[in-house]
Amino acid sequence: MVSFAGPSGTGKTTLLEGVIGRLTSKGYRVAAVKHDAHRIELDTEGKDSWRLRRAGADSTLLMGRDQMAWFGGDGAGPDLHQAVGLFAATADLVVVEGFRSAGLPTVIVAREGHGDGRWEPPDPALVLTTAHPSDVDEVAELLQQRFLG
Amino acid sequence: MVSFAGPSGTGKTTLLEGVIGRLTSKGYRVAAVKHDAHRIELDTEGKDSWRLRRAGADSTLLMGRDQMAWFGGDGAGPDLHQAVGLFAATADLVVVEGFRSAGLPTVIVAREGHGDGRWEPPDPALVLTTAHPSDVDEVAELLQQRFLG
Repeated sequence: MVSFAGPSGTGKTTLLEGVIGRLTSKGYRVAAVKHDAHRIELDTEGKDSWRLRRAGADSTLLMGRDQMAWFGGDGAGPDLHQAVGLFAATADLVVVEGFRSAGLPTVIVAREGHGDGRWEPPDPALVLTTAHPSDVDEVAELLQQRFLG
Repeated sequence: MVSFAGPSGTGKTTLLEGVIGRLTSKGYRVAAVKHDAHRIELDTEGKDSWRLRRAGADSTLLMGRDQMAWFGGDGAGPDLHQAVGLFAATADLVVVEGFRSAGLPTVIVAREGHGDGRWEPPDPALVLTTAHPSDVDEVAELLQQRFLG
């Protein structure tokens, strides 16, 4: 697993898109995990999952063949490693956005004029590199050498 | 785990809502799982998860504190038991809609005029009862005796 971190608006998702594209075009299987502290807007009023949750279900799972949604109410969800073990077990590399407390090797994404005084960089020992969102080739190459050699 | 089964339109979700309400009002923790063979509409064009998947990610996980969404492309998702183990481990009872091949004890939901000639009832050995969607008290009582005694 490798984390992409940086202040909001620096282009983390843009860089991730590019890197995922490069690595998958080389035949690697890449899984992506994004932490979303905001409420994910999955649970729409009137839908069955919403009805079951409103009725009092602690945990509601909606399972399709290749999609799943879970709505819990008790903070009893899986942690990053459990979720990756279940949903990304066959990936060659798991790229992660967010989850800074997971202590993962980290690519810092930085862009001039997009700082955030409150953003704290991770422990330097975890930093693999600092990259601009356009550094797709360089970052893909680094990840390939480091994790897919 | 207990399954609720019946032809489309008989009122499975309505009965489930009522039964979940009764059991949770008695202090039980109930988790609900719904099989959705149709495409769950979670993955909206332009959103980050969509961008990562379009870029080639095999598996995309969006994790919030009490919600999660997974989009896979390779049919490598968890099965019912794995998902329940991860997301509903603390439930006293897991009610399931769909998943007829899982061989679970089953409440058949039936309503006059809402048949489906193609619907095949499960193995009689699995059938706990046949209920109308308004039989909330009777079904809640049965499940309590059978699974929560």
